[in-house]
Amino acid sequence: MARLERIEAGFYRIPLPEVLTDSTHGAMRAFEIVTARVRDADGAEGVGYTFTVGRNGGAVHDTLAREIAELVVGEDADLIEALWRRVWWALHYGGRGGPTVLALSAFDTALWDLKAKRAGTALWRLLGGHDPRVPCYAGGIDLDLPLDALLRQTDANLARGFRAIKMKVGRPDLREDVERLAAMRAHLGGNFPLMVDANMAWTADQAIRAARAFAPHDPLWLEEPTIPEDVAGHARILREGGLPIAAGENLRSVWEFQALISAGGVAYPEPDVTNCGGVTAFMKVARLAEAFNLPVTSHGAHDITVQLLAACPNRSFLEAHGFGLDRFVGHPLRIEEGRAVAPDRPGHGVSFDWNALEPLRAT
Amino acid sequence: MARLERIEAGFYRIPLPEVLTDSTHGAMRAFEIVTARVRDADGAEGVGYTFTVGRNGGAVHDTLAREIAELVVGEDADLIEALWRRVWWALHYGGRGGPTVLALSAFDTALWDLKAKRAGTALWRLLGGHDPRVPCYAGGIDLDLPLDALLRQTDANLARGFRAIKMKVGRPDLREDVERLAAMRAHLGGNFPLMVDANMAWTADQAIRAARAFAPHDPLWLEEPTIPEDVAGHARILREGGLPIAAGENLRSVWEFQALISAGGVAYPEPDVTNCGGVTAFMKVARLAEAFNLPVTSHGAHDITVQLLAACPNRSFLEAHGFGLDRFVGHPLRIEEGRAVAPDRPGHGVSFDWNALEPLRAT
Repeated sequence: MARLERIEAGFYRIPLPEVLTDSTHGAMRAFEIVTARVRDADGAEGVGYTFTVGRNGGAVHDTLAREIAELVVGEDADLIEALWRRVWWALHYGGRGGPTVLALSAFDTALWDLKAKRAGTALWRLLGGHDPRVPCYAGGIDLDLPLDALLRQTDANLARGFRAIKMKVGRPDLREDVERLAAMRAHLGGNFPLMVDANMAWTADQAIRAARAFAPHDPLWLEEPTIPEDVAGHARILREGGLPIAAGENLRSVWEFQALISAGGVAYPEPDVTNCGGVTAFMKVARLAEAFNLPVTSHGAHDITVQLLAACPNRSFLEAHGFGLDRFVGHPLRIEEGRAVAPDRPGHGVSFDWNALEPLRAT
Repeated sequence: MARLERIEAGFYRIPLPEVLTDSTHGAMRAFEIVTARVRDADGAEGVGYTFTVGRNGGAVHDTLAREIAELVVGEDADLIEALWRRVWWALHYGGRGGPTVLALSAFDTALWDLKAKRAGTALWRLLGGHDPRVPCYAGGIDLDLPLDALLRQTDANLARGFRAIKMKVGRPDLREDVERLAAMRAHLGGNFPLMVDANMAWTADQAIRAARAFAPHDPLWLEEPTIPEDVAGHARILREGGLPIAAGENLRSVWEFQALISAGGVAYPEPDVTNCGGVTAFMKVARLAEAFNLPVTSHGAHDITVQLLAACPNRSFLEAHGFGLDRFVGHPLRIEEGRAVAPDRPGHGVSFDWNALEPLRAT
């Protein structure tokens, strides 16, 4: 038995190199990361993390440091399903959703890193092993970029090796969204995978109108057209709008994915390992999608997520994010000819530069 | 304009006079309350609170003190819908659900208290005004009480003026649940409103079996038969089990209530003002229930909730809770002939004894 001896929670605030905007979160000037480091009685370590777009990090950190640590230290680190359930139910009343699930996600990811390291294998192999080369797209947070800057950003992404790109939509005037999409399509050519992301900007009917206006420019998917709670709305948008719908970065459990998938409300389920409940929950969502004959894509944390999608025969594109965490990570994601490559180091392969993070510690 | 000048968050850990148990939360030895005191530029004050069954209070407090205060100080305290939306979206990414909603609930309740005080009227009148005398039941947390102690507790509740009682079910052996229910029914007589609460103990099929076994003993409702995420399961239990279903203490938004109600999964929606999003969200759930021709009941915080149900023509029973917060409250709930009485003091009428709470401050 690998007894959990210690959990160390870290809370950091990372200024963004440039202010990012989308239709819902407004201007983002910083993001927060909360790290979980677990160590077992043999001295083996695992690490996980979660992030926010600038708020709630204090509550996430409190949950890890105060609650989860007390609940699990001394338990067998190898029994991840049992530990997950223990944390879920102990924190359920005041914690179903929100910061609690982000904290659980970081902890769960650290346990999987530890398990794979102890087994001396890469996480993507431990989880089943499919293909380490995962199609990858550049996720722009670019709603307010002028069109020429958007095209320049696109050229830079092509030069970095990306062969798929996502852009934001949801400007106050739909005609601007359509013009920008048309310009991007003209710039990239007919077969290039190009996605659009509305960040919940619309009602269902506004989304249907937008989807129909976008359709001639052939986006691969339309992401988060409306609020995550509107399951029936998603189903109607998908059916009547005529575009595949991607959604999931704001769903916080496998049950929420099940409801949306069962209702026919999503074509590309898009879990985020840092907020859906960790590796344990991400893989259940991915397998659930497979059972429904759907591809699975991802949100956030590309460095860890490449390992998870590399274990999934139904993997679609991995999102590569622009938050700039790479400068604090030992081996940033490698992109080759449009594919991210899951490394074969034991564990999930992500290690933090703790010295570089230290000056950014938040309290 | 009543400018919000200050928000003060308090975090207290209250030992329980006796250990309480239910089928899911295990032994509860303490509960936490987090208070929100708001003051406007004219010096008027409002107060709200939320509680947990012993965990997550630190994250709730962090959210109030760190995030909500920064988001709303300086804004017009009278525009509660605008402030609610501002907080919801600013904290959405890392905070949809869980501790974030508990914090928002406390803040929102304080704003309504302030609004009613400034208007010089009781909250139940401000919210519409229906009937200040609200049918009320004693909610026992008594799963592990031996039968004779359960009956003695019941006699004490009758002596305190209660004319409706809820007991816990969900013991490992269903026959024990049935025997205890039968004994309670025999003790109380055929017409006495008696409810049972399973605290999510079962799968849908276990719940249907339990409901059918309970039906001859005529419980008024069966509460929380399974996990809140299983909307389809609730609908099936209600339809096939043959008992009205109450649920809602673990739903964290009006959208979650809408999904459960629309699916036909609940007969008695049961919002908790301290965790569904505050007075604003509670009243929307109550009105939604009315639109679906359903009664509305409640969970927790009876002192504030009596004001809300007193404004609802479709109000069913108010739950009176046994957590023992009364000793820290200025005017504990008054029960007369089975009805709780909403006081006519301005605001929601609840004031805390801050000096009595001070020694219980948590950090």
